[in-house]
Amino acid sequence: MAQLLRVQNFTVSSDGIGAGAGDEQSLERPFGRVDPGELFSWAGATASWPNRTDAGGSRGLDDYFTRDFAHNIGAEIMGRNKFGPQRGPWQDHAWQGWWGDEPPFHTPVFVMTHHTRPSFTLSDTTFHFVDGDPATVLEQARGAAQGKDVRLGGGVSVIREFLDADLVDTLHVAVSPVKLGSGVRLWESPDELLDRFHLDVVPSPSGVTHHLFWRR
Amino acid sequence: MAQLLRVQNFTVSSDGIGAGAGDEQSLERPFGRVDPGELFSWAGATASWPNRTDAGGSRGLDDYFTRDFAHNIGAEIMGRNKFGPQRGPWQDHAWQGWWGDEPPFHTPVFVMTHHTRPSFTLSDTTFHFVDGDPATVLEQARGAAQGKDVRLGGGVSVIREFLDADLVDTLHVAVSPVKLGSGVRLWESPDELLDRFHLDVVPSPSGVTHHLFWRR
Repeated sequence: MAQLLRVQNFTVSSDGIGAGAGDEQSLERPFGRVDPGELFSWAGATASWPNRTDAGGSRGLDDYFTRDFAHNIGAEIMGRNKFGPQRGPWQDHAWQGWWGDEPPFHTPVFVMTHHTRPSFTLSDTTFHFVDGDPATVLEQARGAAQGKDVRLGGGVSVIREFLDADLVDTLHVAVSPVKLGSGVRLWESPDELLDRFHLDVVPSPSGVTHHLFWRR
Repeated sequence: MAQLLRVQNFTVSSDGIGAGAGDEQSLERPFGRVDPGELFSWAGATASWPNRTDAGGSRGLDDYFTRDFAHNIGAEIMGRNKFGPQRGPWQDHAWQGWWGDEPPFHTPVFVMTHHTRPSFTLSDTTFHFVDGDPATVLEQARGAAQGKDVRLGGGVSVIREFLDADLVDTLHVAVSPVKLGSGVRLWESPDELLDRFHLDVVPSPSGVTHHLFWRR
């Protein structure tokens, strides 16, 4: 069985924007000007949302996507801006990501950065810092994934880099009905990918439209 | 976390029929007059279909359902007619189901029958034969599921029994565009369940319409 590279539950606005511009990011605003609560409300309403603390939540279409997040995933690749708001050389290694003592990954995570630092482990997630091109980092992540697939966690610029290198096998992008106007943009239109991918467009009763791409 | 009772990937015709009448079933025709290949073609076309032997198959909407089949499932409950075509007391115990040496369940399976027989194991699936009402059988299956959910595998009459006893937490029913006219019927209309369940109706590009019910 091939080890796929999969984008899972990545959410953009109706105009294709995944986060505010990079220089808007701060400790308090991981998505810059963009309110992640608004963008991700479709996922937060489901029973399988990892941060849910009560027994409620919907178990319809959107829940299939939140519960598939970790299905057969053995490693994640993310960009440095997903890991934290720091830029340039690390001042120290105190920052360990946004996720507290129990990160929601439960696998090795490869953070792409030109400024490497030692790996560390929080609960069952180990963060590695790697400086390399997409193909090299993917090879490392596959090696760590124990035969399972690799999730490409974003943000936008990392997904675009891997798309440009033609390394992505499947993408699930939820398009939210919110319009943002500016920020980092995944696409002008999902049709840009149709030369290389099949596409199922699936509107959800929650208001988002799931876009499911798989390689032709 | 509660242990749910879930119907997964159950397929009926546009007029709600899941199989031919019980007396049509035979060794050669597990679904009686109904052609399962026609009813299940949506699932057979996906990359995650368990019987697939090549590397192809779609990875869009329908694939989410086929790959969710075993997700967090620790046991299955099925009716005797799903297990085999025999009726009444067992003449012998040579029959071990339709599935060969590698049944696709990979968990304990509880076959509901008034004619019990000794349990047996094929690969990582153990079949138990139990005579009891739905609540009692569900309790046994939950005990065997090691904290995971229980799948209600069908056929139609078993699903109806558990619905009547109000024991079902979620149902995924794929409605195929094929009309059958007669056979065992799950419903006249999916609306019959709306007093007790939320419903997402999700048309797939493949032609089936996924119906996702979860308890109110």
